[in-house]
Amino acid sequence: MLFFTQCFGAVLDLIHLRFQHYKAKRVFSAAGQLVCVVNPTHSLKYAPTRCAATQASTEQGILPPCHHHEAVHDPQLVPCTCPLFSCPWEGHLEVVVSHLRQTHRINILQGAEIVFLATDMHLPAPTDWIIMHSCLGHQFLLVLRKQEKYEGHPQFFATMMLIGTPTQANNFTYRLELNRNQRRLKWEATPRSILECVDSVISDGDCLVLNTSLAQLFSDNGSLAIGIAITTSKVHSSEAEM
Amino acid sequence: MLFFTQCFGAVLDLIHLRFQHYKAKRVFSAAGQLVCVVNPTHSLKYAPTRCAATQASTEQGILPPCHHHEAVHDPQLVPCTCPLFSCPWEGHLEVVVSHLRQTHRINILQGAEIVFLATDMHLPAPTDWIIMHSCLGHQFLLVLRKQEKYEGHPQFFATMMLIGTPTQANNFTYRLELNRNQRRLKWEATPRSILECVDSVISDGDCLVLNTSLAQLFSDNGSLAIGIAITTSKVHSSEAEM
Repeated sequence: MLFFTQCFGAVLDLIHLRFQHYKAKRVFSAAGQLVCVVNPTHSLKYAPTRCAATQASTEQGILPPCHHHEAVHDPQLVPCTCPLFSCPWEGHLEVVVSHLRQTHRINILQGAEIVFLATDMHLPAPTDWIIMHSCLGHQFLLVLRKQEKYEGHPQFFATMMLIGTPTQANNFTYRLELNRNQRRLKWEATPRSILECVDSVISDGDCLVLNTSLAQLFSDNGSLAIGIAITTSKVHSSEAEM
Repeated sequence: MLFFTQCFGAVLDLIHLRFQHYKAKRVFSAAGQLVCVVNPTHSLKYAPTRCAATQASTEQGILPPCHHHEAVHDPQLVPCTCPLFSCPWEGHLEVVVSHLRQTHRINILQGAEIVFLATDMHLPAPTDWIIMHSCLGHQFLLVLRKQEKYEGHPQFFATMMLIGTPTQANNFTYRLELNRNQRRLKWEATPRSILECVDSVISDGDCLVLNTSLAQLFSDNGSLAIGIAITTSKVHSSEAEM
């Protein structure tokens, strides 16, 4: 009996995901855009580290600690860049992607333009929605985080990091786009390198920031569809004149 | 002596404004775009009204009270819609613009695309930057407000209201764009009617919202340049398919 109940639950879940996928496809109409349903993960990183201590001086709210480790012995090695877990792994930059896939089960998607459909936006902070995005010969990590920077007032922060060096990151521009209810919000910026702390980027607010009310306006039935596009960087035309 | 000091101060102010105007023109490169330097006004509206009382139930932060009056006797008359002052004026919708210009000295600009250059962003909340914008045969009120929705954490809210009815407002789309430091943020929405409460729109967060850190990233020497464009509304292509 329990087996049948579980089977029925699984089928319902599949139908629900399929429906969300279909809806997101309709919202983001561009033909060929890949819609990826991303489920939330409750962040398990709470032990304070050196990085968190330096952040504490500039931030007054509640912050999940940075993932950087106390000491990286070999300068060629980078720590695990997974924003979700305090992981003792160290390795070369070239194998970070396979570590994130294999150890932390972070999905990777191909395509210049994809739709990131984050489900269960109502879950309490801190919660992360994470995928990797393979595009233009590089891999990017997209992080959507629900966090209470000011206690009792959760906000959503979305950013894209290149799994590469800061110099490589400067060659790209990423765009995040929300579009619903006759409202459209677009954020364009140069991705940061994964060697920088994702927590710092979010605590600095140098990313797409949504209040709960705006997130609700852009959500559909508890899911938030974010259109993502990555291009090779050109200096913004208006700034080139300066 | 005092006269000469004041004259010198005035000349310095003029040079400073001219310099800011020139910089904003360079940031927003489109030829023919009008740059308007908008100085801040400290909001003088503090007496609680009926509208503020209804808002209090949904909001926990500090809110300037709404400008609506206790009673509008003639349904053909609308109250003064100036977000800055509690003003006892009432009149027909057609004469709101001249009231705002003459009594509250709010400037009006012509042009489909303009640049709103808000100065002195560092001033403490609550502060408003306001202009009217005449375009496509209608007048719009642009409000940028610095407000502490959560005490100790000022945010910037920008919205555009049509000086007309909600039905008329549905015919337009406005776009606010920030562009600096290799970052770009765009907000597109249908303007609200000035008959709705501008304070409600801002307290609902249904507008462009900037944290202080993002506002600083987009500011140049304490001034924030916002590109504004108004178009006649077309249903967003991606939503039309739904």
